[in-house]
Amino acid sequence: MDDKLMLMIPGPTPVPEQVLRALAKHPIGHRSGDFSQIIAEVTEGLKWLHQTQNDVLILTASGTGAMEAGIINFLSPGDRVLVGNNGKFGERWGKICEVYGLNVQQITAEWGKPLDPEAFRAALEADTAKEIKAVIITHSETSTGVLNDLETINRSVKAHGALILVDAVTSLGATNVPIDAWGLDVVASGSQKGFMLPPGMGFVSVSPKAWEAYATAKMPRFYLDLGKYRKEAAKNSHPFTPPVNMFYGLQVSLAMMKKEGLENIFARHHRHMNATRAAMQALNLPLFAAEQASSPAITAVAPVNVDSEQIRSVMKKQFDIILAGGQDHLKGKIFRVGHLGFVSDRDILTAVSALEATLQALNYEFTSGAGVAAAAQVLRPAS
Amino acid sequence: MDDKLMLMIPGPTPVPEQVLRALAKHPIGHRSGDFSQIIAEVTEGLKWLHQTQNDVLILTASGTGAMEAGIINFLSPGDRVLVGNNGKFGERWGKICEVYGLNVQQITAEWGKPLDPEAFRAALEADTAKEIKAVIITHSETSTGVLNDLETINRSVKAHGALILVDAVTSLGATNVPIDAWGLDVVASGSQKGFMLPPGMGFVSVSPKAWEAYATAKMPRFYLDLGKYRKEAAKNSHPFTPPVNMFYGLQVSLAMMKKEGLENIFARHHRHMNATRAAMQALNLPLFAAEQASSPAITAVAPVNVDSEQIRSVMKKQFDIILAGGQDHLKGKIFRVGHLGFVSDRDILTAVSALEATLQALNYEFTSGAGVAAAAQVLRPAS
Repeated sequence: MDDKLMLMIPGPTPVPEQVLRALAKHPIGHRSGDFSQIIAEVTEGLKWLHQTQNDVLILTASGTGAMEAGIINFLSPGDRVLVGNNGKFGERWGKICEVYGLNVQQITAEWGKPLDPEAFRAALEADTAKEIKAVIITHSETSTGVLNDLETINRSVKAHGALILVDAVTSLGATNVPIDAWGLDVVASGSQKGFMLPPGMGFVSVSPKAWEAYATAKMPRFYLDLGKYRKEAAKNSHPFTPPVNMFYGLQVSLAMMKKEGLENIFARHHRHMNATRAAMQALNLPLFAAEQASSPAITAVAPVNVDSEQIRSVMKKQFDIILAGGQDHLKGKIFRVGHLGFVSDRDILTAVSALEATLQALNYEFTSGAGVAAAAQVLRPAS
Repeated sequence: MDDKLMLMIPGPTPVPEQVLRALAKHPIGHRSGDFSQIIAEVTEGLKWLHQTQNDVLILTASGTGAMEAGIINFLSPGDRVLVGNNGKFGERWGKICEVYGLNVQQITAEWGKPLDPEAFRAALEADTAKEIKAVIITHSETSTGVLNDLETINRSVKAHGALILVDAVTSLGATNVPIDAWGLDVVASGSQKGFMLPPGMGFVSVSPKAWEAYATAKMPRFYLDLGKYRKEAAKNSHPFTPPVNMFYGLQVSLAMMKKEGLENIFARHHRHMNATRAAMQALNLPLFAAEQASSPAITAVAPVNVDSEQIRSVMKKQFDIILAGGQDHLKGKIFRVGHLGFVSDRDILTAVSALEATLQALNYEFTSGAGVAAAAQVLRPAS
């Protein structure tokens, strides 16, 4: 059915009606006093959401653009970097580093497995000459539903002294990323994820230590030059023409997030992750990521005895629920359920019940109702 | 009055209600078949608007991001380029070229004066070794309301063989930019101008000759790597997460533009330029750009005996009409009236009548009604 679409992909994520309405307001001039006030308001809200006093800068760019900015502003060609790669996005950051002539050392893990913090500790401790300038980590690997152990890896980075640059695209607003408490130098994200907005805006937070590196970093950049954004942000302004209507939406979504509260937002995402995982297990659908490394934003499932593309097809055709497929070599091997952003308990039950109906239609053998019951058990209010 | 704002700045420009409503639709997945159809539809429409069979690529970026992409994809560090600079944007493209290590030769003109095509002819003819790889021109210089003579300059570029890279940010959709007829290699623009959309999207058209240069161009780029966009566009896809809701708006605005027709759109912009200029002359307000070099998107005015910032202030406070001020050294010396995009004959009369009321309030001496009458004369339907 048209207009009954339900997105359960890791982005775009569902957008609340009041945010959509805000997007439809007439634009105002981006050099006006009124718009400066909006910049000031959303910047304050972003700092709250990022749990930081660092600058949080706003780009007209996708998450990749934000992440590229997070890399190229703080390094120079030839600099040695350690890149964690256990999925499509870790792989992408490695490619960006190579394009810009960085000396890349990759620490890899199989897709579906988390990065090993020990490997980072060993590589960083071995670097007694302090040649490694930055460590680049994808927190929640969207392609596999794996949450890497950023906190532990970061401890080794802090002990070493390198910068830590984090892709938090599907973790920010879904799970705890306490930038100041952990001392995360650069954290990049995008609007169409935990922010409950359509795509079109990228965010980068930058620590004082990263700004020190910026001062001597020598990569060519202009549109993605974060120093320009910092300079204008200090005056509640923007170096280029910002996406005015997206700012309206961000005002509303930040207000909604503040009302819910960070702890509640994180608890909701974890509850939905646990409910989704419990349902899959009850339906004998193997989870792609292990429990201790599962992303609160997305659950990847690797079905046996039933085809994942057929599941996605029936879910879409009959129930208008969009699940993500696998990427690259995982195409056809996994499906991914997004539970990120504007997602309610009801949405999880809806998806699981539709999945049961789909499995039934595909003649997959399972205990009817087991998925819904398992999810309901997790979602059950504390008495 | 809140919500009665009337934008007469060169961007953001007014957005039609049906476009705003389209922006408020729920996003769909950007990897879906439905979204591929939207990409195909708007790409076809963009080619129509650009009067080209070349690729027209869509970026989540401002006009500056699009223009940077238009420069860095086709050149290598050390390449010699000729940059036209007669305003803030020409100056900006020169800066981007320097950041990327190009060997920049600037051809300048005073702000408010057009670039001299003869200077380009001479520089290009003198380059018998064909060292100049590209010529970079701002078509409509937004900071001054000057329209550079792209057609004549381009003839010299064609005779030489260099690439021509054009900032058409405030000319595309306002005046004739026949990309294929003139053989323009790279043309960049942004959504918040003639496209009748909010800011948030950039466009770059690329000729086969520019793609040849791309094959050997050696500047680091990833997010702004147009080859990635070309590859995905061929499959009606996008290399990163595109701004889905802006695509909805673009669908509607392109349909509106097709209905009006290119000739009518250009005629409307020229009529509004002429009406605005006639009104200013009737009010003894000196025009900043000469008639033969005036932009159909924006009219800059350099008032004497009355303060331009006071004019802008009264226009805003009493009449909720936003005019642009001068930039950099022109701050306080000029005001700029945008008549670009979704602007009607009525809007021009409204702005001129409010300007008359403002001048009266500021005790500026002029013949009452002269501005409105002069504009009306230009707007008068052909009998």
